[in-house]
Amino acid sequence: MPLVVQKYGGTSVGDVSRIRAVAERVASRRKAGDSVVVIVSAMGHTTDELIRMAGEVSPHHHAREMDMLLTAGERISMALLAMAIRDHGVEAMSLTGSQAGILTDMIHGRARIRDIRAFRVEAGLAEGKVVIVAGFQGVNPDTKEITTLGRGGSDATAVAMAAALGAEACEIYTDVDGVFSADPAVVPGARKLGEISYDEMLEFASAGARVLMERSVEFGKRFGVPIHVRSSFHDSEGTWVKESTMEQTSVVGIAHDTAIGLVTVRSVAGGPAELLEALADEGVGVELILQTTPRDGAADVTLVVPAAQRDPARLVAETVASRIGAGPVDVDDASGRVSLIGSGIASQSGVTASLFTALAAAGIPIRAVSSSPIRITCLVASEDVEKAVRVLHDRFDPPAPVVEP
Amino acid sequence: MPLVVQKYGGTSVGDVSRIRAVAERVASRRKAGDSVVVIVSAMGHTTDELIRMAGEVSPHHHAREMDMLLTAGERISMALLAMAIRDHGVEAMSLTGSQAGILTDMIHGRARIRDIRAFRVEAGLAEGKVVIVAGFQGVNPDTKEITTLGRGGSDATAVAMAAALGAEACEIYTDVDGVFSADPAVVPGARKLGEISYDEMLEFASAGARVLMERSVEFGKRFGVPIHVRSSFHDSEGTWVKESTMEQTSVVGIAHDTAIGLVTVRSVAGGPAELLEALADEGVGVELILQTTPRDGAADVTLVVPAAQRDPARLVAETVASRIGAGPVDVDDASGRVSLIGSGIASQSGVTASLFTALAAAGIPIRAVSSSPIRITCLVASEDVEKAVRVLHDRFDPPAPVVEP
Repeated sequence: MPLVVQKYGGTSVGDVSRIRAVAERVASRRKAGDSVVVIVSAMGHTTDELIRMAGEVSPHHHAREMDMLLTAGERISMALLAMAIRDHGVEAMSLTGSQAGILTDMIHGRARIRDIRAFRVEAGLAEGKVVIVAGFQGVNPDTKEITTLGRGGSDATAVAMAAALGAEACEIYTDVDGVFSADPAVVPGARKLGEISYDEMLEFASAGARVLMERSVEFGKRFGVPIHVRSSFHDSEGTWVKESTMEQTSVVGIAHDTAIGLVTVRSVAGGPAELLEALADEGVGVELILQTTPRDGAADVTLVVPAAQRDPARLVAETVASRIGAGPVDVDDASGRVSLIGSGIASQSGVTASLFTALAAAGIPIRAVSSSPIRITCLVASEDVEKAVRVLHDRFDPPAPVVEP
Repeated sequence: MPLVVQKYGGTSVGDVSRIRAVAERVASRRKAGDSVVVIVSAMGHTTDELIRMAGEVSPHHHAREMDMLLTAGERISMALLAMAIRDHGVEAMSLTGSQAGILTDMIHGRARIRDIRAFRVEAGLAEGKVVIVAGFQGVNPDTKEITTLGRGGSDATAVAMAAALGAEACEIYTDVDGVFSADPAVVPGARKLGEISYDEMLEFASAGARVLMERSVEFGKRFGVPIHVRSSFHDSEGTWVKESTMEQTSVVGIAHDTAIGLVTVRSVAGGPAELLEALADEGVGVELILQTTPRDGAADVTLVVPAAQRDPARLVAETVASRIGAGPVDVDDASGRVSLIGSGIASQSGVTASLFTALAAAGIPIRAVSSSPIRITCLVASEDVEKAVRVLHDRFDPPAPVVEP
């Protein structure tokens, strides 16, 4: 019997009527003969409400208790979903992350999945039940402490569970139709991609596309789990993320981020190693490092970080700068980035040149360029980001003409 | 180091400011040198809100998933309380019922505590931490399924935990000052009792006083745990429930219930055994059975049940009546009861007679009387209940005069 893992995010189970709609979808899939495991996030408003209460109770961050608190969220959505599924005459049971055997390391708030021992999930499936598993949460097997997985945790739970169970596919339900060649809100002619490789999706995610987080794509790639990103509003196919089956050297899409954080430390002697270590300790992911040519053995180091991590990054940078005797720390919050994604494009002669030409013709200054084998990213002013996306989409990815009958 | 178990109900942790007030009380007790275990209920509004959502999602009762849902409630309050206590510089950690080793049978919604394996609680105490335990919830050790304890479950958790840990006392914090000689809302001159025996408290609880549930008193009695019922609003002593140290033969107080359910089955042949078995299977507690003198081998049987169980009792009675060929089932919802409580009062000559005289003089008809060694209960019309309480309080328990300085 084919086994599918479905993941529904907070918006998809945002209220009672949406929970009932998800239940109907799950039940009909089960009745059609598939085994179904459902990974569910907390209802849309719940996590915010819990965080608000914690903020009112205490000005401090209590990592262990915050995890205890937040894991109440999925408990609510998963129990309600199980009830609604059972009302369709389909047996269903909910399991917490701990009960489902999601074993993690011991870092509260951003734990990593280390292993999955899905005995109770498998037992439930063997009894013909739909098994609902709380996303975003797990347990450390040594301390028995409850952990949460941090951003993108529910997607990671879903893909890891699909890998552990040998599922045919992992379906990620969202409020968009799939992965697009560019943000349809910025480029009205953006195309929905039918298929994209794991590596391309990783670049999309790290370049600012929010539809699917990197860590779930990494799980999918490592264990060969096909991921189907699709809408929870209708039954149309979305975008398949899987191993690419053909050689391809064209731009598949354009990702962007209107706001990123640029933190510059002046006059760093001996390179940025200590700075980067301190940032890693605090969980700040540095996406790009720019260094000026050293003068008198010291250089200015600019760190590009996600906008949400700009303030933590600045605090760490100031602490380290004062310890190592570097100069002042500047923060720029008016930059964004635009990325071209596509296997082989960085090595394909002409793509980078065309990019420079197109942006120059549109009067958009480029502050820096970085690239990987399948991505070329330009830093530009925040105010230029959307225009740059449209210019590059026109240049590299003309929309398929729509012919009305 | 003295160990105390404190229990705070839903009202005591009803909002953020009350959680902070509880945290302050707990922290100062810990700083004064006591080891402290805190049992906490869900925040006042949470359980109702979760039940409302479940009702909107599904018209049916899904017992397992309802337990999964409701146990989110204590998870929220206990995590918030732990944060607030830590802000006072006192180490604190929260544990779910399962983590705290509250082992129960497998009856969802009204599980019974079978054993307590409080290893993690003891480990936390040994590290000097305040340990916060979710009330109302447990786990069945065979199936690993989460259960809830039903009405009065948090009090039961507290007293059972105090017994398991060998605590000096179990403090039950409520929104009243203690156990009173009668409901102060009905009898303005009612006295707060300084001390009451387990047996008297059991009778108080079963006779309608809501301050402490029977099952927690039973635990206290069985394991000799002194229970201190007190207010969460101030530091005054409340009422101690413990083994009585002296022989006492006076009325300690008057309990009442404005509404109870009377379900009468006409023409039952061969006694009410089958009826009572069916009621027990459905979890309906019958408090009193009245039977008319049999005629042609059949008698009318009247069952006295708590008001909340009147409808379930009627359904069961109708099913059984039709099966055994008994007559129709009548329901009376205009009766209440008034109980005199006091060790030895039923055997003390004159008490029952005085009771009849006093109520008759006040023009209150008595529909039935039942008694235990330490309780005499009269069924009266609902509309007469409060008047009867005042009449009997005047007769048996004149209030101590208050002298203003």
